[in-house]
Amino acid sequence: MILSATAHVELICIGNELLIGKTLNTNAHWLAKRITSLGLSVRRIIVVGDNVDEIASAVRESIQRSPAFIITTGGLGPTFDDKTLEGVAKAIGRDLEENKEALEMIKRKYEQYVAEGRIKKFEMTEYRIKMARLPKGAKPLPNPVGTAPGVLIECEDVNLVMLPGVPQEMMVIFDESIAPLLRKIAGNKVFYEASLDIRGISESELAPLIDRVMNENPYVYIKSHPKISEKTHHIELHLSTTSDNQDVARQRIERAIMQISELISERGGKIQPTQI
Amino acid sequence: MILSATAHVELICIGNELLIGKTLNTNAHWLAKRITSLGLSVRRIIVVGDNVDEIASAVRESIQRSPAFIITTGGLGPTFDDKTLEGVAKAIGRDLEENKEALEMIKRKYEQYVAEGRIKKFEMTEYRIKMARLPKGAKPLPNPVGTAPGVLIECEDVNLVMLPGVPQEMMVIFDESIAPLLRKIAGNKVFYEASLDIRGISESELAPLIDRVMNENPYVYIKSHPKISEKTHHIELHLSTTSDNQDVARQRIERAIMQISELISERGGKIQPTQI
Repeated sequence: MILSATAHVELICIGNELLIGKTLNTNAHWLAKRITSLGLSVRRIIVVGDNVDEIASAVRESIQRSPAFIITTGGLGPTFDDKTLEGVAKAIGRDLEENKEALEMIKRKYEQYVAEGRIKKFEMTEYRIKMARLPKGAKPLPNPVGTAPGVLIECEDVNLVMLPGVPQEMMVIFDESIAPLLRKIAGNKVFYEASLDIRGISESELAPLIDRVMNENPYVYIKSHPKISEKTHHIELHLSTTSDNQDVARQRIERAIMQISELISERGGKIQPTQI
Repeated sequence: MILSATAHVELICIGNELLIGKTLNTNAHWLAKRITSLGLSVRRIIVVGDNVDEIASAVRESIQRSPAFIITTGGLGPTFDDKTLEGVAKAIGRDLEENKEALEMIKRKYEQYVAEGRIKKFEMTEYRIKMARLPKGAKPLPNPVGTAPGVLIECEDVNLVMLPGVPQEMMVIFDESIAPLLRKIAGNKVFYEASLDIRGISESELAPLIDRVMNENPYVYIKSHPKISEKTHHIELHLSTTSDNQDVARQRIERAIMQISELISERGGKIQPTQI
């Protein structure tokens, strides 16, 4: 099983907007894709609302499953419902305290806003200070796009990373501050994938063929994704592997594609490669 | 806090494709929106891979939080990696057994495929029987679009619902078999929401205004969603409430909109209503 062979990551996405179906969770999708392509695996994604106890229990439960990294999104801003730092502090039993480095980052950002004419004047209100009140021992991560810094905490062999919910802010902090750390623990691992577009054969006819090919290719994971189609069966077949060597990974996938394509053709199915 | 005032639901989405960032979790988004509009609240969404132990532990943990409903998506098909029924059976300590009603549904579907010329002949292979091996005491739910039936299990005051991962199948089974059950426990509850488009005021300037208006409107939840914009501050302000009475809900939101709009205007912000 590929997913458990490598160091793993859990994502905790925080925000009522995700639970009421207002916002599609593109943050989890982007992070999962990025983390997988860096050679690590995402083992679980949890979505909770803007509630300190919910956040704290999700973080506590996640720590018990010993991922290398826990990455949260959302809830770092200045409003009352931004509760991530409070929830995380509660989960790990640390107090919140004003972090000088974070305060300095926030101050510089508002001074920049004044210089740009976005706001008229700048005062360090309690709402702005709130974004700098981090769990003890936390390190703020620069946010080049918005005001709330990201946060990194090392805790019981788990790296806890808190990213903002605004996608552009989340992405840039991840790429600049977190991706390099993940690359280090992933080593040379690469994730390699390919998809085939299959028509004219049902998923239950395909099932024994997948079993056979996976049996002969133990490092390749093959999954069928049926598509709804009016007249014929239509399935996307996704093949993936993780390896230390890009060439090995590619060869594994190519071999499995050859074998499964032959079996599908023998049974009258039609195959086309697709772009991922 | 609105989210905890009503009966709640948890979603467990199953599939490696969600954890590797191949598939965007539109199923969770659709279900969350639908369940919220039916007057219930989604308290947590969990995503796990195609792994029996991961599924079982997610279901067990969810049951302990006592939701009225747990709804899973994915993993009901005929292939080796469709492990939801096995995971749920393990979580609740029930054996899997061939369910006659489910077997009949599957048989009828393949006979229809033969009649339509989609498959040449029909045999009840082990892969097809697998979709009818349900936890003891389960009730299969008709799937008008695909082959794998949905599944309903009543267990320790929790209704466990298993839906397929193919969106069209998931949606129709939810609407036909599950929405009526949710409506019953929701009673007359309605969820009412509105959004305002705010420019020219920063989120940290908005924060104390939200506090004030929420303080005077205890049943209205107001959340700010900052948008990235090059030159000015741009925020979507989302207001929502849940009530037994549609008119009361609307009046609450209208009153809160009036109050916050006035405060924002006083501080030089510009407001426009937006479509949801």
